[in-house]
Amino acid sequence: MVNKIPVAILGATGSVGQRFITLLHNHPWFTIVSLAASKQSAGKRYKEAANWLMPTPLPENIGSIIVQEAEPNLPCRLVFSALDSNVAGDVEMAFKKGGFIVVSNASHYRMANNVPLLVPEINSDHLEMLEQENSATGKIVTNPNCSTIGLTLALHPLHRLFGVEKAHVVTLQALSGAGYPGVASMDIVDNVIPYIQSEEEKIEGEPLKILGTYCPDRREVDKANISISAQCNRVAVSDGHMACISVKLKVKPSKKDLIAAWTTFSGEPQKLELPSAPAQVVYYFDEQNFPQPRLHRNIDKGMAVSVGRLRDCPLFDYKFSLLSHNTIRGAAGGAILCAEMMVKKGFF
Amino acid sequence: MVNKIPVAILGATGSVGQRFITLLHNHPWFTIVSLAASKQSAGKRYKEAANWLMPTPLPENIGSIIVQEAEPNLPCRLVFSALDSNVAGDVEMAFKKGGFIVVSNASHYRMANNVPLLVPEINSDHLEMLEQENSATGKIVTNPNCSTIGLTLALHPLHRLFGVEKAHVVTLQALSGAGYPGVASMDIVDNVIPYIQSEEEKIEGEPLKILGTYCPDRREVDKANISISAQCNRVAVSDGHMACISVKLKVKPSKKDLIAAWTTFSGEPQKLELPSAPAQVVYYFDEQNFPQPRLHRNIDKGMAVSVGRLRDCPLFDYKFSLLSHNTIRGAAGGAILCAEMMVKKGFF
Amino acid sequence: MVNKIPVAILGATGSVGQRFITLLHNHPWFTIVSLAASKQSAGKRYKEAANWLMPTPLPENIGSIIVQEAEPNLPCRLVFSALDSNVAGDVEMAFKKGGFIVVSNASHYRMANNVPLLVPEINSDHLEMLEQENSATGKIVTNPNCSTIGLTLALHPLHRLFGVEKAHVVTLQALSGAGYPGVASMDIVDNVIPYIQSEEEKIEGEPLKILGTYCPDRREVDKANISISAQCNRVAVSDGHMACISVKLKVKPSKKDLIAAWTTFSGEPQKLELPSAPAQVVYYFDEQNFPQPRLHRNIDKGMAVSVGRLRDCPLFDYKFSLLSHNTIRGAAGGAILCAEMMVKKGFF
Amino acid sequence: MVNKIPVAILGATGSVGQRFITLLHNHPWFTIVSLAASKQSAGKRYKEAANWLMPTPLPENIGSIIVQEAEPNLPCRLVFSALDSNVAGDVEMAFKKGGFIVVSNASHYRMANNVPLLVPEINSDHLEMLEQENSATGKIVTNPNCSTIGLTLALHPLHRLFGVEKAHVVTLQALSGAGYPGVASMDIVDNVIPYIQSEEEKIEGEPLKILGTYCPDRREVDKANISISAQCNRVAVSDGHMACISVKLKVKPSKKDLIAAWTTFSGEPQKLELPSAPAQVVYYFDEQNFPQPRLHRNIDKGMAVSVGRLRDCPLFDYKFSLLSHNTIRGAAGGAILCAEMMVKKGFF
Repeated sequence: MVNKIPVAILGATGSVGQRFITLLHNHPWFTIVSLAASKQSAGKRYKEAANWLMPTPLPENIGSIIVQEAEPNLPCRLVFSALDSNVAGDVEMAFKKGGFIVVSNASHYRMANNVPLLVPEINSDHLEMLEQENSATGKIVTNPNCSTIGLTLALHPLHRLFGVEKAHVVTLQALSGAGYPGVASMDIVDNVIPYIQSEEEKIEGEPLKILGTYCPDRREVDKANISISAQCNRVAVSDGHMACISVKLKVKPSKKDLIAAWTTFSGEPQKLELPSAPAQVVYYFDEQNFPQPRLHRNIDKGMAVSVGRLRDCPLFDYKFSLLSHNTIRGAAGGAILCAEMMVKKGFF
Repeated sequence: MVNKIPVAILGATGSVGQRFITLLHNHPWFTIVSLAASKQSAGKRYKEAANWLMPTPLPENIGSIIVQEAEPNLPCRLVFSALDSNVAGDVEMAFKKGGFIVVSNASHYRMANNVPLLVPEINSDHLEMLEQENSATGKIVTNPNCSTIGLTLALHPLHRLFGVEKAHVVTLQALSGAGYPGVASMDIVDNVIPYIQSEEEKIEGEPLKILGTYCPDRREVDKANISISAQCNRVAVSDGHMACISVKLKVKPSKKDLIAAWTTFSGEPQKLELPSAPAQVVYYFDEQNFPQPRLHRNIDKGMAVSVGRLRDCPLFDYKFSLLSHNTIRGAAGGAILCAEMMVKKGFF
Repeated sequence: MVNKIPVAILGATGSVGQRFITLLHNHPWFTIVSLAASKQSAGKRYKEAANWLMPTPLPENIGSIIVQEAEPNLPCRLVFSALDSNVAGDVEMAFKKGGFIVVSNASHYRMANNVPLLVPEINSDHLEMLEQENSATGKIVTNPNCSTIGLTLALHPLHRLFGVEKAHVVTLQALSGAGYPGVASMDIVDNVIPYIQSEEEKIEGEPLKILGTYCPDRREVDKANISISAQCNRVAVSDGHMACISVKLKVKPSKKDLIAAWTTFSGEPQKLELPSAPAQVVYYFDEQNFPQPRLHRNIDKGMAVSVGRLRDCPLFDYKFSLLSHNTIRGAAGGAILCAEMMVKKGFF
Repeated sequence: MVNKIPVAILGATGSVGQRFITLLHNHPWFTIVSLAASKQSAGKRYKEAANWLMPTPLPENIGSIIVQEAEPNLPCRLVFSALDSNVAGDVEMAFKKGGFIVVSNASHYRMANNVPLLVPEINSDHLEMLEQENSATGKIVTNPNCSTIGLTLALHPLHRLFGVEKAHVVTLQALSGAGYPGVASMDIVDNVIPYIQSEEEKIEGEPLKILGTYCPDRREVDKANISISAQCNRVAVSDGHMACISVKLKVKPSKKDLIAAWTTFSGEPQKLELPSAPAQVVYYFDEQNFPQPRLHRNIDKGMAVSVGRLRDCPLFDYKFSLLSHNTIRGAAGGAILCAEMMVKKGFF
């Protein structure tokens, strides 16, 4: 793997775009060759076009790249999309038609037929719905909603062993999930906002596709038969989405068995030792006040999820708290892991 | 009512004690004659003994009161208790035995037989379990947990009309609920703590007594037949507990009828025009991102509760967001309303 | 004063505009007859046009006012301007030419000749530079920068008795000073921003005009001979600007005399008992950790300033901490006080 | 250096103690052999004794160490002290008398004769005041106050070239500087506290010793002739002390020369390539709103300081903003760098 795979980032100046840069800089398989953004940014050096917000410095060689418009003429086949949802649909389709492989963090095509909605530890077989893997045709692969990824990584180990029938989800979501400038500071200092646009619908819908079963003959996914209810809140946390989850299972295991289902779970990215795969997918904490965003969001470089406080639920079987890093595992890092899986599957 | 009723505050230096002072200062019926606290504070002027945290200035005449020990020799019959739970049991019992009427914010006697757990809009008839109302014997009346009060004020208008069978509750609770110094700042800046000691048990238990039916012959409360599941989180908000609630009702009303059940609800404190009673008990907001702690916690001087985001729940009937001020309605203000009700019922 | 003076607010939908509404609603002398804002808002009911952020509810009768464009055809003579600085210059001039009296919170005309820069406790005689007070010609009167107002209210009592030669000012400024949406939450959670655009220049320049001497013959202000150095920071506080100030005085008084200079200071608004005038202009706190934004910003309805921690300075004479409410005293409330003074001076 | 030097940490359970563990774990020269704390903690496994607050997990092998009392019988010669100031005096002296070399973060002996107050980039020659370097006698070496370290690292490059005569310092300090539990959350949410006990005295005094000249014949330090005025504030930031600084220099350089003085500065730790030495000591940012705590506190693993906003000061020569990580460079990391320097100087 001496010759790295050239990649571009669409929407490179935004907060997810910046996270992509941080994670792709010094990536062992990929190398950034192009940064694309809106017309206003095109033509400027990235250093001038972006308001760099990451807690690690902007790499010098990235800062001097001239930003391009997001048009399908970039010198690479793989593009990561961090585009705003209002433009992602058209631009990603243009790249697909241009023969590019788009790994997208945008919501536009997530629920579309023939588009995998991928969490590599869970459903990398869904990639099979893409025809002619090695062919030159363009493809779109999507990364789920930031809250959905953490949720499905916590539910999947339970679903495959005990069957999840119902999940009640209340989130306490971080500010970075709203992008930049995103949430106004006056709206969140000494406050909570009990609403995030379109978030509840995504959390109630996307997991059914992710946890669904791929049917090779129909090249379709049969959705999982799970009922989910979601309530979403924005809280004054920079990174790290928390969720309070209650689940009803087909078979109620002991607490010990349930915790073991999490801590022993390992997926295909772990077996393939993909560069961005966390060593352990789900961490369980015995401390009664864990997990917490500030303390645990960066576990395994932000790619693992953390669970704690498993206890009986008077209304369902069990309840617990969940944490995942929304812009690493829940966005840029998750998308990169998808691309790494596609490399191993022979798409490049 | 020219001659005001003299009152004392036990635990006057803490954050709830300070809130009692703020609300009782210039109260039309009550006048503070004594402030009691721990041995370390006794003998000092209140101004020196307390670390005043309220956003309104400490009244001069209160600041110069000499703090006393919490012993049942105070020059009044009515005492408000803001004592820590670890000492409240013994001290409150000593005052009861001394013939005092204790209106307590502490949890120790809430679930005890013969002790009303009072939310005046809901169950002021529970005061009948106290024998010999006008007699000189001591009495303890308790104010519920801060989250429970808001929850029951939102559930009661539904329960009496449609019957609440199940309630799933996830809270996002304010810092002032933990007292002072309470939560360390290092634990909550850029963070959420998914645990509050003993809180979930209180929220799952206390509403059943409050919403229960008083049986005059047995002088007991038959608990309501409701199943509640609670998950509690601490967030970086100064005042105002939020909750995400899902409910299953015996009879599912239309949204319009459900909202009307809230907005038209009026209790005995409203009919009696008690000084601390909110004009409206439950406010409903149509804005999709309301209620919010910073904007709505002080509605009706912090004595009303705010509800918003009513929508269908895939797992129960409805879900909604709830806000109440935890140290006004949920603590000192609620206790004062209890005492006002007792005045009208002839206890003084 | 049965017939209230009709007033309009320009820029009514922004955060300062909202503060104007809160303070003018139920004002004893003024009544809001018109709300003006940008083209996008014009034609809508105020309730729909504004994203109401105040912690008190939007009054119903205000919410139903149809927003107009900011053109000089409004049915009143007095307009309060809360316009953005980029449009204030042209719009305010249009209103002046139309014969209106504009009391402006914008910076555009503050340092202009023939425009009073008014802090009514300090320099209401500067109003004399306006010719033909009772005439029908239009006029612009300006309210200083939010940090400048607090600073000059703390400096003026010292300047008139001891002579201020130098002032070193470092501010810790609240988020509301940046308007709405203003500071992005991602920029301020767990953070400080050591920069506020154009703020240092205003703090270093405006006080010299405010504390200057009006020369009737030249109808000009001779600027005060004070050197000021300012450094400005944004911190995660909703309302209330703090400042650390060091001063060099012509005559160094004792601490006791200096504190007395503050606490005994009373200006013309106090003598005239203007409705918005604070009873006491400067409060001094003996507590070593006071003043604090959350505890003291609302003193005297947010119209007084708070000072504490007076101590010797190794480099100047004294240093101290200062707090003032930036959107009440420092913006809308200050402007209303200016208008009240103009009423008493016979401008209406 | 196959055999690492065994070290102990006194006050290991507190927040600075935890930072020591994080930084010493996997240190190339040192290995933790003992953790000491108060009587209440002694006998417990560290995992149970400490409330782990660091954002990286507690290493397993450290968590299982049995905590000991802080008595001078530990199996090592080098001890790092993170003791509370109220006990540090006696305990550190006991260790010194027991022949230990104590590198202390506590303030007790900082200004004492014969005790170096060390910032290795600045004054490692001050170690010469310790007699018989290689002898077995005990020694105390101190690490300055957290704000002082950053301040002196910014002033020293200017002082040696241009001569600092006066420095005016206003700090905006992080919560971790107050230890744990430290600042109550109710005191800092939506707030600033304009006071930190004893902090201003330290900032005004310690730099004079650090920047002073060692006189070999008298084995004493002649203090630098600088006048410093400090004003300290606590803000809602987890880590990273900001300061607004104005300086008067003997010779006023150009801005370019002043910036070059910072960015080209390199000290003995850099020349010796000590493991904890930052590659660059002082970073200068051209961005007008930099440095910021959340973005820059971790530069060079938290061991460098960041400066920005250099501009002319109307009262002194120049003013600028400064940031340093208070628990890494300003506490544990700084103390470890001192110990590394002592290793190179032959103390072990």
